[in-house]
Formats: sequence, structure tokens, C-alpha cells
Amino acid sequence: MHDAISKLAEVFVQFPGIGKRQAKRFVYFLLAQDASFREDLAKLIRELQNDIASCVQCHRFFVGRKTQSDVCDICSDPARDKTALMIVEKDVDLENIESSGAYNGRYFVLGGTVPVLDEAPEHRVRAKELQERIESDTPKEIILATSAHPEGENTAEYVRTLLAPFQEKHSFSLSLLGRGLSTGTELEYSDADTIKNAFENRSTT
Amino acid sequence: MHDAISKLAEVFVQFPGIGKRQAKRFVYFLLAQDASFREDLAKLIRELQNDIASCVQCHRFFVGRKTQSDVCDICSDPARDKTALMIVEKDVDLENIESSGAYNGRYFVLGGTVPVLDEAPEHRVRAKELQERIESDTPKEIILATSAHPEGENTAEYVRTLLAPFQEKHSFSLSLLGRGLSTGTELEYSDADTIKNAFENRSTT
Amino acid sequence: MHDAISKLAEVFVQFPGIGKRQAKRFVYFLLAQDASFREDLAKLIRELQNDIASCVQCHRFFVGRKTQSDVCDICSDPARDKTALMIVEKDVDLENIESSGAYNGRYFVLGGTVPVLDEAPEHRVRAKELQERIESDTPKEIILATSAHPEGENTAEYVRTLLAPFQEKHSFSLSLLGRGLSTGTELEYSDADTIKNAFENRSTT
Amino acid sequence: MHDAISKLAEVFVQFPGIGKRQAKRFVYFLLAQDASFREDLAKLIRELQNDIASCVQCHRFFVGRKTQSDVCDICSDPARDKTALMIVEKDVDLENIESSGAYNGRYFVLGGTVPVLDEAPEHRVRAKELQERIESDTPKEIILATSAHPEGENTAEYVRTLLAPFQEKHSFSLSLLGRGLSTGTELEYSDADTIKNAFENRSTT
Repeated sequence: MHDAISKLAEVFVQFPGIGKRQAKRFVYFLLAQDASFREDLAKLIRELQNDIASCVQCHRFFVGRKTQSDVCDICSDPARDKTALMIVEKDVDLENIESSGAYNGRYFVLGGTVPVLDEAPEHRVRAKELQERIESDTPKEIILATSAHPEGENTAEYVRTLLAPFQEKHSFSLSLLGRGLSTGTELEYSDADTIKNAFENRSTT
Repeated sequence: MHDAISKLAEVFVQFPGIGKRQAKRFVYFLLAQDASFREDLAKLIRELQNDIASCVQCHRFFVGRKTQSDVCDICSDPARDKTALMIVEKDVDLENIESSGAYNGRYFVLGGTVPVLDEAPEHRVRAKELQERIESDTPKEIILATSAHPEGENTAEYVRTLLAPFQEKHSFSLSLLGRGLSTGTELEYSDADTIKNAFENRSTT
Repeated sequence: MHDAISKLAEVFVQFPGIGKRQAKRFVYFLLAQDASFREDLAKLIRELQNDIASCVQCHRFFVGRKTQSDVCDICSDPARDKTALMIVEKDVDLENIESSGAYNGRYFVLGGTVPVLDEAPEHRVRAKELQERIESDTPKEIILATSAHPEGENTAEYVRTLLAPFQEKHSFSLSLLGRGLSTGTELEYSDADTIKNAFENRSTT
Repeated sequence: MHDAISKLAEVFVQFPGIGKRQAKRFVYFLLAQDASFREDLAKLIRELQNDIASCVQCHRFFVGRKTQSDVCDICSDPARDKTALMIVEKDVDLENIESSGAYNGRYFVLGGTVPVLDEAPEHRVRAKELQERIESDTPKEIILATSAHPEGENTAEYVRTLLAPFQEKHSFSLSLLGRGLSTGTELEYSDADTIKNAFENRSTT
């Protein structure tokens, strides 16, 4: 079938985490709404590119066009610690870290991860842009904030090789988010690596 | 925040089964696509109302405008058994029954369900439209195809009261989808109602 | 390790649904109890064979030694319908059917199921015992109460071949538990077989 | 029913993580085994107390009677670091930490946890025994290895109050297992506390 219902469902099925059945439900949900609901949604989707820009410094998406700026509110915030740069995989990671209130420095969004044994990692993440950022920004500390699974560790490893040529020149420190017990972890069910890391990173109180 | 990202996420969060976090992921997914992807999606959503109509007979959504007809392909199919009418809750139920190949009659889509103890059931489902359909269509058999949970059973009960005034006049039979063991059911884990129904509806072979 | 903790855990791991870790937890749970708790448990396990017998008619386990009888309370109950015999896979199925109150006839416990393509089905279920029961009991109706998945259907199929030689001679009817919507089933998520069965077994009301 | 099947099921239902239905399945599983299987199991349960003792130093269960010792193999192992004492909630935690190979010191098993707002924490854990152990053992470092959820944190807090009177006298350091990203943690789905801890405990590489 190549009618309007099927065509729209075929687009929704490309959304992250959406299967064929839920894609269909989305279409029927839209059909059951007022025409104005669909008009508003279509307008918001179409105009996304008008309002949202990619920050030239950290590469996160932000409400840039409106503010006539190509630098996002975090990168241009004078209250932010300019000496710290945290490297994250994607925009939602950055948002989650921001809402935790844990960090007051600046960011760089890689825009992807590097799978283990990948042969062209430079096409997976913003490699050149990161190196340019380091050259222009000269941070004192760079924090690798990748996820704690093999693809995340491999991404961190690749970023280290990207930064190596600059470390001597700019003498920044390079750190990795601490490994240990995350909230809710029970020792009975922890894997050996988590226990090892939690023991090595134990904190005197 | 009332920027374009938040506004769009607030619409996605109204989609069936979508939470705040996944709504945000949808927005970032769209931002990471080409502008043409977003243009196409917006167009499909906006034009849904141009192509799709609600069938005046069964009330399902169908590709109506194109065919210059206000009756859907199932209702207008001469090969369909006109003497049987299956009443379903919603479009996706109809689709799933169609793809099972079990049924060759016609349908009526209620467009909702009646919660237990609801005081205005006539606003929950297409009550008047169903009665009009029975009057004009005079089927010989009506099959209630609601779900096998309390809200579905209550909906079936309400539809029975809607049909009662017509049953004597038009003398149709009224049936309910069979209750019993659905595929995968194990007797060890079955509830008492399922066992009772499966025993009462046992079939001699 | 072949100490008492490991040895006991190795027995618990053979229990249905118990993994290595939970088996260990069982042992530590037992160690943390009073000695009298362990004594009582050991006694109950050891004496199981003193109190419980397998009914010579239906082969379910029952409190037989105490009652000095080799026929269980269901098989010997005069209020039970002697003309109906329900064939179940295992004791817990029988218990669940009993607690539903749906059935008042007698039972036969197969003691297993026949996997699809199994080459020696006669070693999987009580084949000879079932045939003897039919010969001596001459029921008027036999109900196959196997589970609604491939192994259950295959078991039912095998039982049919066991019963075939006797059907002409004793002229009993042979029925299968009804297939259809089990409690909680939604039409949107039903598989094609369930819909087909529910449609074919629809009941006029 | 107070027959042997029900009585045994009532004991199994007290096992950790076992519901009524699975308890019944255990009984039927035992009935379906050879008498020798049940005999062996009963013997292992009854003799658990003969072979297993609680170590007078760390209070873990161990194969003590056989070795004619009241001190377990870990506490009596000369290759173990006597200056470090790790305090764990229960035996399975200790086992899991041992199998990780992360730690080479000695242990103390609390034998329980202290729920938040509990009014008699001294009855929940081996409070007096812990204090005696510290007095006699004078470790240089004590590591709190409780779980990373509210009850675990509260238990750690209570243990701190137990140790406080001894800390000045014996001048040991008191540490807590490191908090951060456990294996598999994704930043997108991390809670604020995990992110804060991971950031604070970041390690320079």
C-alpha cells in the first residue's frame, strides 16, 4: 500500500524506538485529532530549521536563529567555567548532565559514537571540529563523558588519540567520569568490573 | 522553555505511549535529519486530511478523497458478505482482523470504548451512527469484536443496549467473539474465567 | 568447591526456574534460619513419600497413604460426573482447573508433554496407563486440556492417536478446550490464529 | 488443606523470591523425582548445621566443623591483608566481591541492613560483634561496602556511628566504595546523583 496512511507510518517507523505497529497507531492518533493539531505539528516540524541552529563551538542544537547568534547560550555564558570542556556523545546526554546541576563548564558534542573495530572512526564523530575547538579554546581540563559500555569506552579511547597531539602543546588534564556504584546498584548483582572500579575509587570520608 | 525544541517535544508527548524523554529524542532525531526529511514529514502530516476520509458507512479512515468516494474499499467491495457486520473499537483492531484473513463481512468502527460506570456512553462511541447503519443496512448477523477485558466487555454490553430496539424489527443474530485459550495460553497460569470459557466452548473434534 | 553449601546449591539449581545465584541464596536463607526450621523442612521432604501416593486411576499425587486408599479423593468422589474424563499435562494444571470450579468430571494426568517431532512419545506421557483407564472406565466424553502452544497441540494430537483405536469400540465423544480470546486479550495485539479461532467459535447471545 | 503437599509448599513460600505457585511447583517437582533424590536433599539440609559454622571473626558461614576451626579460611589466610577490613551486608555480597578478585583484605558480615527511620538498628545488624572485632583487630582501613540505595546508605550511616567511638583511639581510615557509572550505564538515562558522583569522582588518566 502506498496511500497516505502507509507513507506516514513508514516515516514514523524510522523514529528511534518505534516499531511498525506503533507507527500505525501514531497515524491513527493524528487522524483522530482536529485538523489544527496536525497543522500545528507540521508547522513546528517544518520551522525547526528556522529557529534551531547548531552551535559553531559545541555543535549542540540551540535556538540560534532567533538570537541572531551562531554560538549557543552555554558557550556564550560568561558565568561558565571556560577552563573546563566536557565531551559528550549526543545532545540528550548534555541535557541530562545539565539538569543534574553537577557541572558548570562548557561542552563539545561528538554527534555519534565509535563502534568497536570501526575502520573509519573519523566519520562517526566530529573529529576535526573537536581538534579545532581545542586549538582555539585551550581548556585546562577536558572531561570524557561517554557511556560506560564497550562502544562508549571505545569512543573515549578514540577521542584520546585525537587529543594526544595537542596535550603536550596545551598541557590540559584529561579525565574520565568516575566508575563505581551507580544509584540503585546492589553488590550481590554487580559485575566484576563495577566492583573493581568501586573498590579502586573508594573515597575516604 | 518555550523554544521550538520544547514546543515540538510537547506535541510528541501527546502521542500514544510516548514519554517526555522519548519525545525529546524524537526532536533531536528530526534535527539530525536533512531538511528534506522534515519537509516530507510535515507535508505528509498536513496533507493527511486531503487524502484520508472517514467512510460514511463504517467510519474507518481510508484513502477517500483520491477515489472521489465517501465509501471505503471494504464497504463498497461486492465480494464482501453484506449480511455480516462486525463491530470493532478502533481502526487498528479492524486492520489486525483484516490481516488475519478470518472474516469476509463488513465492519463498523465505534471510535472508542465505554469505561465501566461511565455516565455518558453515547459520547464515547458512535452510537447514533451505529443505529443508522443497522437501519439502512439490515445485516443478518452482527459480531461484537471488543477486547476481552472489563472495558471491552462493558463496551459490548452498551452496544447490546443500543441494538436491542432493532433486533426484533430486523431479526439479526448477535454474536460475540469466542472466549477460550488464546495462542500461547498455558493451563497452569490461566485465570478461572478463561478456564470456564474454554471448558464451556470446548469443541468436539 | 564440594562443601555442604555448594552441594546443596547444586540440588536447588535443579528446581524448576532456579538459577545458580538464587540456589545460593536459598542455602544462605536456610543457614540463617533456626536449626528447627531446617529439621522440619528435611522431615517434610523425606516423608513426602510416606504420605503422598500416585492415584492408580488418574495418576495425580494425593494424600494416599494416610487414607489407606490407592484411589484419590477426586476419582473416588461419588458426586463427580463419571462419564467425563479430562486429560491434563500435569498436576498443577489439574489444580488450577479445580480451583476455577469449571469442571465436575474426572481427570487423567499425562505426566508430561510430547515435543514436536519427538520420536518416542510413548516415553513422554503415560500412554499405556491412559489406554487402560479408557478400557476400564468407558467415559462418554473425553476432554483434551493441553496448553495452546505447539508442544501442547502436539501432545493433544498424540493423545488422539492413542485414543483412536478405542473410540469406535466405546463411542465416546472427544473434545478440545475452546480456543478464542482469553481474559485480557486485546484485538489490536492478537495473532491471526487467535482471531480466526475467536471468530469461528463466536457465540450467539 | 494441611496435607504433606500443602505443608511443604508453605515452607517453600518462605524462601526468598518464591510465590505460592512456584512453591507448589517445587513440591510436584520433588514428587516426580526418585525417592533417593529427596533423601539426599533432606540429608543435605539436615546436615548443613554439622558442616557449616559461622566464623567467630567475620561471621560468614563457612565449612568450619570439618576443619575443626572456628575461624574461616579467609580470616585465617596469612596471605590476606590484615590491615584492611571490608564491611558487607550479607554472605552473597562477600562471595560476589571475592569472585571479582578486586580485594585481598578481610571482611565483616553485618548479617542485615538498617531500613531508613528504623528505631532499633542494633537488632538489625551485628553491632556489638563489629565493635568487638574492631577492638581486637585494629585494622588500618575500614571499607563500607553497602549497596547504593537508600537502605544501603542508611546502613552505612549507622555503621559510621558505631565506629565513631573507635576511630580516634585506633586511627583507622574509613572509606566508602566509589560512586559513579557502573558497567552499562548510559548518560542519557542516568539520574542526577549518579552524574554528580561520576563527575566528582572523575579520574585523570
